[in-house]
Amino acid sequence: MSLRRQLAELLVLRCSGHQLDQQRRYPQWELSNSELRHWLSEGVGGVILLGGSAAELALRCRQLQQWARTPLLLCADVEEGVGQRFDGASWLAPPLALAGLHRRDPAAATALARAYGRCTALEARALGLNWVLGPVCDVNNNPANPVINVRAWAETAESAAALSQAFAGALQSCGVLGCAKHFPGHGDTASDSHLELPLIPHGRQRLDAVELAPFRSAIAGGIAAVMTAHLLLPELDAARPATLSAAVLQQLLRQELGFEGLVVTDALVMEAITSRYGAGEAAALAFEAGADLILMPADAGAALDALEEGCRSGRFSPQRLQQSLARRRAALTRTQPGPLTAQEGLDQLAALAPQHQKLNQQLLSCSLECQGQGPPTGPGLNLIRVDNSLQCPALPLQAPALLRPTQAGFQPRLMDDLAGPWASAGLGDGPVLLQLFVRGNPFRGNSDGGTPWRALVESLLAEQRLAGLVIYGSPYLWRELKPLLPKALPAVYSPAQMPAAQALALQAMGLEGASDDSGFTD
Amino acid sequence: MSLRRQLAELLVLRCSGHQLDQQRRYPQWELSNSELRHWLSEGVGGVILLGGSAAELALRCRQLQQWARTPLLLCADVEEGVGQRFDGASWLAPPLALAGLHRRDPAAATALARAYGRCTALEARALGLNWVLGPVCDVNNNPANPVINVRAWAETAESAAALSQAFAGALQSCGVLGCAKHFPGHGDTASDSHLELPLIPHGRQRLDAVELAPFRSAIAGGIAAVMTAHLLLPELDAARPATLSAAVLQQLLRQELGFEGLVVTDALVMEAITSRYGAGEAAALAFEAGADLILMPADAGAALDALEEGCRSGRFSPQRLQQSLARRRAALTRTQPGPLTAQEGLDQLAALAPQHQKLNQQLLSCSLECQGQGPPTGPGLNLIRVDNSLQCPALPLQAPALLRPTQAGFQPRLMDDLAGPWASAGLGDGPVLLQLFVRGNPFRGNSDGGTPWRALVESLLAEQRLAGLVIYGSPYLWRELKPLLPKALPAVYSPAQMPAAQALALQAMGLEGASDDSGFTD
Repeated sequence: MSLRRQLAELLVLRCSGHQLDQQRRYPQWELSNSELRHWLSEGVGGVILLGGSAAELALRCRQLQQWARTPLLLCADVEEGVGQRFDGASWLAPPLALAGLHRRDPAAATALARAYGRCTALEARALGLNWVLGPVCDVNNNPANPVINVRAWAETAESAAALSQAFAGALQSCGVLGCAKHFPGHGDTASDSHLELPLIPHGRQRLDAVELAPFRSAIAGGIAAVMTAHLLLPELDAARPATLSAAVLQQLLRQELGFEGLVVTDALVMEAITSRYGAGEAAALAFEAGADLILMPADAGAALDALEEGCRSGRFSPQRLQQSLARRRAALTRTQPGPLTAQEGLDQLAALAPQHQKLNQQLLSCSLECQGQGPPTGPGLNLIRVDNSLQCPALPLQAPALLRPTQAGFQPRLMDDLAGPWASAGLGDGPVLLQLFVRGNPFRGNSDGGTPWRALVESLLAEQRLAGLVIYGSPYLWRELKPLLPKALPAVYSPAQMPAAQALALQAMGLEGASDDSGFTD
Repeated sequence: MSLRRQLAELLVLRCSGHQLDQQRRYPQWELSNSELRHWLSEGVGGVILLGGSAAELALRCRQLQQWARTPLLLCADVEEGVGQRFDGASWLAPPLALAGLHRRDPAAATALARAYGRCTALEARALGLNWVLGPVCDVNNNPANPVINVRAWAETAESAAALSQAFAGALQSCGVLGCAKHFPGHGDTASDSHLELPLIPHGRQRLDAVELAPFRSAIAGGIAAVMTAHLLLPELDAARPATLSAAVLQQLLRQELGFEGLVVTDALVMEAITSRYGAGEAAALAFEAGADLILMPADAGAALDALEEGCRSGRFSPQRLQQSLARRRAALTRTQPGPLTAQEGLDQLAALAPQHQKLNQQLLSCSLECQGQGPPTGPGLNLIRVDNSLQCPALPLQAPALLRPTQAGFQPRLMDDLAGPWASAGLGDGPVLLQLFVRGNPFRGNSDGGTPWRALVESLLAEQRLAGLVIYGSPYLWRELKPLLPKALPAVYSPAQMPAAQALALQAMGLEGASDDSGFTD
């Protein structure tokens, strides 16, 4: 096999889960079908899928495998169940839903984390994925963290280690590879590595005590892969971000932590890396630093050129390449194939649906917090905040958050970033039921021009117009706003946003089911 | 075969194109998979599909055919190309796009209507449908019509007859059945039969001169099916709506117009019928009046009970049933089967995509109207009106209507029915580029509490703040607003709403392509 073909095995390229080129949501980032066929025929060994439904994913995985000449690694960011990305599969409450239960009842929480991993694995395998890019092993110990938040399993090292390991163990026992991320720990950042390079000021002692614990646990449990973080840790390497740092990947991860599996970069296309190093050199630097797989290079051809040049020039040893190829092959032998046809996979999914809906109800129930006396009564306004109403899987037309308050006399009003400033929202002067779908960082709202939730709640309270409050997502926003509320005011928090979470939250507030949203309750 | 099983062949039930029960958008109207399997095993002979993508439809059609014991009629309301309902297939400019061209160049318009029919048929067949519920044969001669509008091929009987027949002929020559609708003509109504029963006051002479012409043409061309309208025509039948009227279906359609094919009801679940007659009796009345197929009965079991009782009691003759069954079998023999697997169908679709995109560009180009001098220049507001931002296939995140004005300094602002009253929109005091996605009836805006477009445009003009106007959809709104505009003001009209229409309309206004929306231009 040619050198270039061997190197191509180490690339993981991005493709839409949709079948047709014109369905791609991000055509500038998602390869066209002819490009995909080209790269797979050149030996590219992995694909990361985003977009499309469960049915489309099932067809797509089989199509990609048919286009490739050798078995592929097929992965997706389905940290919160396959339905998080692929409609029709199970979309579970986010991992942080278990953090509170783990404090109260560690055994029960760990059992649910195992069920979470099993659910994700069985559905991934049925549809054709053999690699789940999870668990998140980051300890979410910075409430201002804009990218981890409810994706983490816990806010303490011990809980995060126990829960992420329970998830990963169950996942891999079903023949689907896991991936501990983002090494060496992305929990204590307040900036977004999609946009800039965050800095972690901690030294080894602190990293050992907090950040590294879940990764040690994952490695001890036999995790198949570890994903690197685009973070600068000056105490470990003053010059290079973790993804490109031999100090982090070789010394810390391989030698000190003894990890023998696959090291995969986070998406190299991310600004923090690409803008600084260029598409080809970023890939070469990552490989030189110790990464085995190159995820989403900004330019696959440039990445291959740079890797090939590095091999020919002696920058990388032949052993280094063979090691990475061997690790990839070893990982593939740990996977179990899914059913032959897409329809068989979907039939498996349908058969699993009842028990997975039940699992989600358990996750939702154990993480729900509520207070006050409901139900809120209208007439009034049902003011719903989402990031972008044009892309809002949490709000199908029959969503409980829309239908149930309407039954109680609250007219729905949708507010997103495209709806203009709050000040002009025309909130009238009647009661307002406020539903906030917020998972990002709520604490920079005032400073970065976002929405002043706290001020809005205070002003509605002052006018005695706040009829109720529901927060779907951030526990930090809940912790900030809850102390402001009178004890009797109906208020609910759920870490999850999907319709089933809405049904449960509004039920807790006394807003009964509408006939049309019955599909979302169990 | 039992009587009940024979009767079941005459039902056409509704099902979601999605694979999984939890994906249904309207669970109260869409059968669950277990209900579907039940009814198909009982011999139900037809299914109408709504919802899901092209890939999902392709899987679903094969699944339904496998569940049934005999060949099914599989239909959908894809009057504007299969992509109108199933994402990934071709979504074409609406039929009315050809009305103007047909006045200027009848031969060119007719050729495009044939290509329209061929495109729809080839994609329908590839995915697994064998029956397209089109063409609309209604002559849209009432600008206040809330349900037909751009779905019609023309505003005159002659053009509507020529274009709908060109479409239907091409459709059926590709082995896909057509369906002329809504008999005897739904063009001259100002109320919505989904909600109430509209009344057509015309007598035979006027019907002959206008409404019936396209149906005569369709029948002469060998149309396989005719769909009845839920309309009251007192001059023909003072008591019963057309769907339930022997005077309309037997005397007019069968005897006078000589139609020998399948008569199918419009959806019996519609309020105009169900609330008046009940689920079972509505089906029995339709069959008694002369319908062969019962579309979307409000309750399949009740419909079968009533039909069975009618047969046993002698209300319907045995010959009547055998006639309908024979017509259904005859229609099925005219269909050509699609490819065996869903993936083969999708591969066919992908191969057809370039020529179908070219067809759509032709439809868009010939129907575009523009005036004034562009481009509009910001900074300002890009005010976009849609019916419902939560369900808006015209606006994917990379839609030209969002991206291109942003490049010219116009910040997007979305206004829909859930965004609250216009008065409170906080439109600031800078230039406003107004983009209206409006296909319904714009003339009742003021009287029914909707949005006063005319007043908004007048007020922005008075303040010299209207930077540009684009109307996607209703030609009637364009005709109303255009006279208000200064000649130099950049203004564009397109009957279509999809991203390709936006790209062309904004291009005509001088707003060049953004790098990210390149997928929507050819």
